[in-house]
Amino acid sequence: MKWTGTPMIISYISIAVLLIILVCITILATHHSKRKFTNDVNQTDTRTIQDNIKSENIKNYLRIFSKEPHLSGSDANKKVAYAIANAWMEAGLEDVHMLPYEVLLSYPDFENPNSVVIRNSDGEEAFRSKGVSPVIIPDEQSGKYAGHQWLAYAGNGTVSAEIVYINHGTADDFENLKLMGVDVKDKIALMRYGHGFRGDKVYKAQQAGAVGAILFSDPWDVAQDGVDSDHVYPKTIWMPNESVQRGSLMHGHGDPLSPYYPSKIELFKGKTIKEAYDDGTLPSIPVLPVSYTTALQLMKRISGLDAPFDWQGSVGGNLTYKLGPGFGNGEKLTINVHSELKTNHKVVGSGFLVCGLIRLRIQNVIGYIRGSKEPDRYVMLGNHFDAWVYGSVDPNSGTAALAEVARAMMQTINETHWRPARTIVFNAWDAEEFGLIGSTEFVEEFVDILQKRAVVYINMDCIQGNSSFQSYRHVETVPTLEHVAIEAAKRVPNPSKEEKSSGRATVYDTWMNVFPDKEVGHPKIRVPGGGSDHAPFLNFAGVPVVNFKYKNYTAYSTYPLYHTMYETPFTNIHLMDTDDLAVHRAIGQYWAELAVMFADKTVLPVNTTNLASVMIKSYLPQLKTSILGMNVSRIDLDSILEQYALLSNSAQDLLKVAIRFQDTRQYHDTNHVRAVNERLISSERCFINPRGVSKHNPSARHVMFSVSDSDAYSNSLFAGIQNAVSMDSYEISPSTSNLREVINQISIVQYSVICVINTLKDAI
Amino acid sequence: MKWTGTPMIISYISIAVLLIILVCITILATHHSKRKFTNDVNQTDTRTIQDNIKSENIKNYLRIFSKEPHLSGSDANKKVAYAIANAWMEAGLEDVHMLPYEVLLSYPDFENPNSVVIRNSDGEEAFRSKGVSPVIIPDEQSGKYAGHQWLAYAGNGTVSAEIVYINHGTADDFENLKLMGVDVKDKIALMRYGHGFRGDKVYKAQQAGAVGAILFSDPWDVAQDGVDSDHVYPKTIWMPNESVQRGSLMHGHGDPLSPYYPSKIELFKGKTIKEAYDDGTLPSIPVLPVSYTTALQLMKRISGLDAPFDWQGSVGGNLTYKLGPGFGNGEKLTINVHSELKTNHKVVGSGFLVCGLIRLRIQNVIGYIRGSKEPDRYVMLGNHFDAWVYGSVDPNSGTAALAEVARAMMQTINETHWRPARTIVFNAWDAEEFGLIGSTEFVEEFVDILQKRAVVYINMDCIQGNSSFQSYRHVETVPTLEHVAIEAAKRVPNPSKEEKSSGRATVYDTWMNVFPDKEVGHPKIRVPGGGSDHAPFLNFAGVPVVNFKYKNYTAYSTYPLYHTMYETPFTNIHLMDTDDLAVHRAIGQYWAELAVMFADKTVLPVNTTNLASVMIKSYLPQLKTSILGMNVSRIDLDSILEQYALLSNSAQDLLKVAIRFQDTRQYHDTNHVRAVNERLISSERCFINPRGVSKHNPSARHVMFSVSDSDAYSNSLFAGIQNAVSMDSYEISPSTSNLREVINQISIVQYSVICVINTLKDAI
Repeated sequence: MKWTGTPMIISYISIAVLLIILVCITILATHHSKRKFTNDVNQTDTRTIQDNIKSENIKNYLRIFSKEPHLSGSDANKKVAYAIANAWMEAGLEDVHMLPYEVLLSYPDFENPNSVVIRNSDGEEAFRSKGVSPVIIPDEQSGKYAGHQWLAYAGNGTVSAEIVYINHGTADDFENLKLMGVDVKDKIALMRYGHGFRGDKVYKAQQAGAVGAILFSDPWDVAQDGVDSDHVYPKTIWMPNESVQRGSLMHGHGDPLSPYYPSKIELFKGKTIKEAYDDGTLPSIPVLPVSYTTALQLMKRISGLDAPFDWQGSVGGNLTYKLGPGFGNGEKLTINVHSELKTNHKVVGSGFLVCGLIRLRIQNVIGYIRGSKEPDRYVMLGNHFDAWVYGSVDPNSGTAALAEVARAMMQTINETHWRPARTIVFNAWDAEEFGLIGSTEFVEEFVDILQKRAVVYINMDCIQGNSSFQSYRHVETVPTLEHVAIEAAKRVPNPSKEEKSSGRATVYDTWMNVFPDKEVGHPKIRVPGGGSDHAPFLNFAGVPVVNFKYKNYTAYSTYPLYHTMYETPFTNIHLMDTDDLAVHRAIGQYWAELAVMFADKTVLPVNTTNLASVMIKSYLPQLKTSILGMNVSRIDLDSILEQYALLSNSAQDLLKVAIRFQDTRQYHDTNHVRAVNERLISSERCFINPRGVSKHNPSARHVMFSVSDSDAYSNSLFAGIQNAVSMDSYEISPSTSNLREVINQISIVQYSVICVINTLKDAI
Repeated sequence: MKWTGTPMIISYISIAVLLIILVCITILATHHSKRKFTNDVNQTDTRTIQDNIKSENIKNYLRIFSKEPHLSGSDANKKVAYAIANAWMEAGLEDVHMLPYEVLLSYPDFENPNSVVIRNSDGEEAFRSKGVSPVIIPDEQSGKYAGHQWLAYAGNGTVSAEIVYINHGTADDFENLKLMGVDVKDKIALMRYGHGFRGDKVYKAQQAGAVGAILFSDPWDVAQDGVDSDHVYPKTIWMPNESVQRGSLMHGHGDPLSPYYPSKIELFKGKTIKEAYDDGTLPSIPVLPVSYTTALQLMKRISGLDAPFDWQGSVGGNLTYKLGPGFGNGEKLTINVHSELKTNHKVVGSGFLVCGLIRLRIQNVIGYIRGSKEPDRYVMLGNHFDAWVYGSVDPNSGTAALAEVARAMMQTINETHWRPARTIVFNAWDAEEFGLIGSTEFVEEFVDILQKRAVVYINMDCIQGNSSFQSYRHVETVPTLEHVAIEAAKRVPNPSKEEKSSGRATVYDTWMNVFPDKEVGHPKIRVPGGGSDHAPFLNFAGVPVVNFKYKNYTAYSTYPLYHTMYETPFTNIHLMDTDDLAVHRAIGQYWAELAVMFADKTVLPVNTTNLASVMIKSYLPQLKTSILGMNVSRIDLDSILEQYALLSNSAQDLLKVAIRFQDTRQYHDTNHVRAVNERLISSERCFINPRGVSKHNPSARHVMFSVSDSDAYSNSLFAGIQNAVSMDSYEISPSTSNLREVINQISIVQYSVICVINTLKDAI
């Protein structure tokens, strides 16, 4: 066979051209074709981040952040802020800076401790409390004024009055005391901690006419193995003699003088101190906390009826608690409380202008890891750093873990090809202890931006134990994000050797083992209430949140050394998390895992179908029960139930639309993915009623999930409706406007549900 | 030279491979490189759209839409809604559908016309008005009840009382009348149209104690060449004998029974009719409009002092207007007004449930041209379609033009490669005439979606003349969009042959010629007030708007046949726009040009720098003037001025940040352009105070631009501050809370300005 060169060359050229075309087509096709769509994070990346989180670093951060007592507003706390900023910058976070606010704080007189004094009928002192807890581990606890026992925003003054005992000071307790014939008016209210926020106890006491209040921790809760030295701190985690829980009494969130708006120096403050007293934001009666040692001095003297069985506790061992009023032996009780409000707030009145002398500036710290693809979408992680004393548990167990998350992520960025697609924002909040002030002012300042850009806010206040993600309260989130909380937990190795050897390899396994929700087949997850910095994000801005902690399962709602001066690194390392801070490390790993899921999934993991399901299966039936419990006429009840039925229909519609949205979405291009994600973010915002759901709490704007009016630690489902319903229930003859208000509030929730339906659609 | 085949082939292959590489590099490079950034629309596309807009089609649409009297809530108006939907669908718009609302409307008794009756002292009728205007062009005006003279939401009933004349019924007029010693209490208030919204006149009359009111159009305004038949309609555009202006008296916007929320059948209505009367949303006194022919019967009888010079008009030629009270000859005045509220609203009270018998459903029409790149960004065009009678001018001159814009755009899409990058949404509003009801309910229903997705709302209610974009009110927009309004006007050919031959080639040239703003070098542009459907977009949702019209320059604020039965196609074609509807066509062209600029510019044309400049140069000095006019002590004034200075600083900060934002932005990729555009959109929303700026008007939420409390047609700059300032000015001894409220409102504006600054930045 003979070939001439030319045709052969032509043939080669043809092949070459064909090749060019083929290669180019392939390149273009690859370039243009939709990559097979997977919506998962790269687990190698998160594995690396998890591995990079080291106990040694956490321990180091912990020591730095809890070296001195660092009360918000103090120089020591400013030093902690700078230490955090420094740690973050060293880790490599971008644009680390402070966000300052000028707020109203409250301090005791550190030179004159508060005291409880008992005098006999001759006026001689029978007992006087020291008002200061003793140093037990001098190496860690010798800071000035560390032992001072006090409560923020207590009224100032000296009060002598008879004492009454009111158990935990819940609404039920006050009602029962009344039924037992004991009047709180003009008395000093003795109440124990637990079963709700301390500020609500005092608020109720003041409303009932009390002229002072004393709070104590009952050994029943905090020294369950006995109060002798072998069974309490520093030998165990239980609370020792002469120790007290400090805390804030503010009723509400954020700077009390600047509702809705940030307390920036250049902005006006809408409320006066007098108004804050008048509306109950601040208590006006003197209040102080006492140790169970001091409580014994009171308890053993109280006369009157025996307190009911479930009001009894372990103060004095077998001592029977009595209700009062007063002491049986003619002795008199006096409490001395030194308390001062401090601010640099200008008071503008008719013709006078007063400037406070002391500038009280708090400052949050913020830092970034900029996202590679969507830098304007924020996955926010946060924890507060201010403490009542040293705060090595609350909050600096979290502060240390967060700093290590930042460091480990930056290490991963520097050592691998990973960088989050969306921006991860690190937040350290100031003045949380005084009433979520730093985070609330931040949300008030940036609410418009957060509503557009924030994907999620993930809060970890502090660890409270070492055994598990335990009890229903300990991973809290909204229904749209439950699956993320679960998925992330499945990826974090169990920090407990014991649990691991029992075959529970991940934190999820222990969590599910201890708190299964059998109906849904995963662990129990509730919606968060107040009590930490996630609250303003969810309640005021409608940004969905995850709030988590590690705690031991006990009936008591927190850990025994909570808000005492004994929260120093010794407690973390030698009492709570003894296996080289394995729990602190697991906390950091879970935080990182959650963050990366929200930062890297192409389509945001927001499950509106679950929201609809939970509404239908759980929330609406609960609502119906409380409607049926209303004290109204049949015809009025029918009107309410009619609107309820319409709400119920809307929830069903949402379920259908959400399923369709999930099933049919396909992703054309960047614009389209961004549009889909915007709809998912926006759907969460639909539940914010700009006019609020509660007259008492300006930051409660979420019609489905807001902080309860009666207990700031709990969540109140459908707060607007519930407020209207309970208004009716307490009145014998409900007025028409209350009836209309119940229906109106149901309709407002329905409007929010319809908003989600409309938002998921691509056009009006 | 000898070559073996193989090397040669290799060489060819090498070249081919090189070629492959080169071509591929070129392809990839082209693909990846940022195209040179231009932020302009393709003028060939818009030229084609402009050319496709035809007068013949507009004429045709006009005839269809104004065939019958089509009052909102009537079957005839439903037919118009379907005719619009049909026209849009024929043009090819996508997803055309109706959005229904159930609202409170008001009608007269068409079988019993309203009347003014004058009886002599013996009780004999000296005069009785017909209450019905005559048919003049039977071909176009023979619809049933077309001539009925009435005002919506007037109180129902018969009142006999003395008459007083109060000029235009402005706040000043009422004050001056008082100074002249005439009391309005228990009188019938006679007021002429002009200088403000009629509903505000009646509101003030009722507040002053009037028991009824009569409104008339003064020939001074509406028949400037005389009232004889040669100088009025149908020979000229001036108002003829026996003609009246109809209209609504509602004080506020939207369904009076559903503030904040849409009047959907499934949602509750928050306000009762009684509450709407009590808070002044609805007048309770009988009111009717009369012709100048009937006004003469009243004027010539009124006794009392001569009215001031500027209260005089042309009723009766040289007749001197007097103030009253009452007639001089013992005659008595009675007005009979038949007015009924209609709704399907359920009234839920304590134990009773009442269902209205008549379902009053209104329905907006909506349709889309989906954007090719960002379908979830909406450029919204709108006009209402309901009319008092035939409405061929108000509103169907606009309705017809909008339908033709839709058709011409779709023709362009079908015949060229053009399609808008963002979605263009077409809106036809119902019940605008009753109080912007259709658009307000729409904005209330979709406010969350609009705040995320709406780029701009462009409103054109109706043409009012043929000469120019004239007078300061006739292209109204916010400072951020002024440059777009100007740029678009430069691209639309002048519809006036006369103007063209004078060298003014575009509508911009005439506009600039008639209303130059010499300081800024472009035509005068003001911020829109109320009076049409743009108001809820700007005031409630913070969506920036452009509102434009074509009108003749006269001192009178509208056209003479406004809201009469003589607004039929004859008027458009033979009296107002006689050159083959050239002005209607130019209106459509301007609308399209604006729409394409907002739909196609890669970076949204939102100029925040101009906003900052206008604040600094114009708004803040105006505010300072009104602060300095306050009746307060020096020390209080200083407090206010201190906050003013801080606001002023924030405006300066905004200017700097806005300039930097403009100068330094570079566009990396689709995500980045979207992020920049989101920031521009979001910055407009910063001015919405979710808690509102006015107690009287729940839809006023824009802290910079809201509808004035005292005149619904005007814009009130810094309404929240102004409301607080005027509270103080009217009181001799302002209370502290008022002083605090002024400062607070200044601070709220400042908060909005800071929000824009923060929003323009890419991180917190």
